[in-house]
Amino acid sequence: MSQLKKSWVQSANTANHPFPLNNLPYGVFSVAEEEPRCGVAIGDMILDLAAAEEVGLIDLADAPVFDLPFWNDFMDLGSEAWDALRERLTGLLVEGATEQAAVEPHLVPMSSVQMHMPIVVSEYTDFYAGRHHAFNVGTMFRGPENALPPNWLHIPIGYNGRASSVILSGSDVRRPWGQLKGPNDTLPRFAPCARFDIELEMGAIVGTSSDGPITVQEADDNIFGYVLLNDWSARDIQAWEYQPLGPFQAKATATSISPWIVTKAALEPFRCHTPAREFELLDHLKDCGPMLYDIDLEVTLAPEGKDASTIARTNYNEMYYSAAQQLAHHTTSGCAMNVGDLLGSGTISGPQKENRGSLLELSWGAKDPFILDTGETRSFIEDGDTLTLKGAARGDGYTIGFGDCVGTVLPALDNPFKH
Amino acid sequence: MSQLKKSWVQSANTANHPFPLNNLPYGVFSVAEEEPRCGVAIGDMILDLAAAEEVGLIDLADAPVFDLPFWNDFMDLGSEAWDALRERLTGLLVEGATEQAAVEPHLVPMSSVQMHMPIVVSEYTDFYAGRHHAFNVGTMFRGPENALPPNWLHIPIGYNGRASSVILSGSDVRRPWGQLKGPNDTLPRFAPCARFDIELEMGAIVGTSSDGPITVQEADDNIFGYVLLNDWSARDIQAWEYQPLGPFQAKATATSISPWIVTKAALEPFRCHTPAREFELLDHLKDCGPMLYDIDLEVTLAPEGKDASTIARTNYNEMYYSAAQQLAHHTTSGCAMNVGDLLGSGTISGPQKENRGSLLELSWGAKDPFILDTGETRSFIEDGDTLTLKGAARGDGYTIGFGDCVGTVLPALDNPFKH
Repeated sequence: MSQLKKSWVQSANTANHPFPLNNLPYGVFSVAEEEPRCGVAIGDMILDLAAAEEVGLIDLADAPVFDLPFWNDFMDLGSEAWDALRERLTGLLVEGATEQAAVEPHLVPMSSVQMHMPIVVSEYTDFYAGRHHAFNVGTMFRGPENALPPNWLHIPIGYNGRASSVILSGSDVRRPWGQLKGPNDTLPRFAPCARFDIELEMGAIVGTSSDGPITVQEADDNIFGYVLLNDWSARDIQAWEYQPLGPFQAKATATSISPWIVTKAALEPFRCHTPAREFELLDHLKDCGPMLYDIDLEVTLAPEGKDASTIARTNYNEMYYSAAQQLAHHTTSGCAMNVGDLLGSGTISGPQKENRGSLLELSWGAKDPFILDTGETRSFIEDGDTLTLKGAARGDGYTIGFGDCVGTVLPALDNPFKH
Repeated sequence: MSQLKKSWVQSANTANHPFPLNNLPYGVFSVAEEEPRCGVAIGDMILDLAAAEEVGLIDLADAPVFDLPFWNDFMDLGSEAWDALRERLTGLLVEGATEQAAVEPHLVPMSSVQMHMPIVVSEYTDFYAGRHHAFNVGTMFRGPENALPPNWLHIPIGYNGRASSVILSGSDVRRPWGQLKGPNDTLPRFAPCARFDIELEMGAIVGTSSDGPITVQEADDNIFGYVLLNDWSARDIQAWEYQPLGPFQAKATATSISPWIVTKAALEPFRCHTPAREFELLDHLKDCGPMLYDIDLEVTLAPEGKDASTIARTNYNEMYYSAAQQLAHHTTSGCAMNVGDLLGSGTISGPQKENRGSLLELSWGAKDPFILDTGETRSFIEDGDTLTLKGAARGDGYTIGFGDCVGTVLPALDNPFKH
């Protein structure tokens, strides 16, 4: 495993800092009244890439690609440009870089900026590819015998989500209304969701378009990077609506993503293998190497005005299918994939109770509420709760951090039609 | 019911012509090597709106909105502009119009153009809101007792489709590969789809954005117009993949739409009521007037090199939920809807065997193949078959036609990874 690369930006060398030179995650930021543009995090600073491009420190494309409020145009340049940018940024920011003096004026303190969505989300797909989660939820919905659907061990099950619902970490989330029917109700009613939940996921960002079936290796090559992703879920709406065509409004209120895209290149040292297969996968879905990443994940919950409690700890290596396998499956029918497509991994739970990536699992459908450090209990999210996802790949003396993915749940409106 | 409005474009006054002055459907076309731009069909001609705007015959926006290969920018001007354009076009093209001589140079024969996608599809949602279809398919998949899911009579069931799969009528459709497992197979396999099918639908185009729950009336106001829509479906892929999260790759090969957007205004004389409700709908989904349209629909199938047979005849008034009710339901959770969103109605079948809008229903899952006029039989689509959807609202001496929605199915590739 590689070691800490030192930068002349001293904060980046601090022990366990999320953004050392090894990371170089990409985001979109703005300062004061200026327009949002692309930047890269290094320690406590952001290098303004639009400015660096303007003065010629970075020169990768014929037209400016960083003076834009999204990374889509840069991604579209292709993987050679991705490699070239990372190499150039490493050269500019490494300890002893000859261009330090030229770069310094374009560093902005992270504390002074506002972050924005890093990409224009073309389309959003959410998978269901964590085995512990699928088993837990399946057990609650259909009993342990029918928990895993027959197809589950053969294909990464997924559904199309709604790109318009993807929002940036830090945006508040309004508790939705929806049509609900409890198991003992005669008729449904329209009411605020009473079982609002999170799903701890990783999001993979497609950086290269494809126009027909692609192999798992090609799919892996086409992924630009990863973010943390919270797929907010209305469990009571879902239970009533999901048969036979899957989740719809239950998943359309919001999906939050963390602001920094951690590149595939930064995660390379943390690759690890998928678990043993119960059934051999068909050729077009077979692993083509270590396909997952060893990334520690956790979820905290802070009641309004109170301290946060860690409610779950798990790891991305608990997935059964990798993002590349999901993307390859996504293309089997000829489905075109575009730059900016976002793929949610599915909820990442581990084998133990404390590894569960949703409140549905943590409270076992409200049958077994869990206790916060503050002494309060929770089954599902209460108004004012702040939920935070955290992620970190831990190397030899350094960390590849993901910016937190945070959201506070606001009470439902009195009348949803007057908003 | 209103009568034929006569135009000085004589072909528009021909009996049963699909594009009389009453219609004025919007599309995107190109001539020879020129760039695609917006146009309106009148008889056998297209009025070049980019040219008409350039010379000042039409002046609705500060910036040009018609010299673009999509109608999204015009839709985004809002419903007052929609009304103003229709009024202006009617004035320019009506018999006796004083500006006939100024308009004539900007008419292009329809026979000389290439049509293009009329909109950039923002996101695509497909519903399942035709009762006869839902009952037929449910009966085949789950038996007649469980045919209609419990939620079906209370909410318009839908799933998010894939915008990248939406293509223009006339584009060929390649038979997809996918993971399949027959009921008697031990394990799944990766193979070409053997049960490739159509779904006869109408597509509603959202012309006004919304950012939270909207009423059925607001939803109706936000719809710009309608197209014919064929949701190509791989039934064998669907049967294996759809539990528990709904259709995914089975619906991602292609969805074809007809080239001309028939506006809501043109369809106004054909409004009709939804059927009697078995359960009263909840307030947020209640009809706010006659919500459907009386539009005759049919499907033809032509084997390669042979004549077409009409295989189904039905009517849009067979829907249980209108597009406005679908759109209102789509927003209940707070889901933002955008200009260019496309909503498929769901397959439109009628009560009789000859009214069925899919081959799955027409052949009852291949148990009862149907016979073409050529004497051949069909259960599902065979390579080389051309499927055509047709639609027309029939008024007092005039017709509001939809351009046909056509697609020919090409054989599956030998190796889907070499395309």
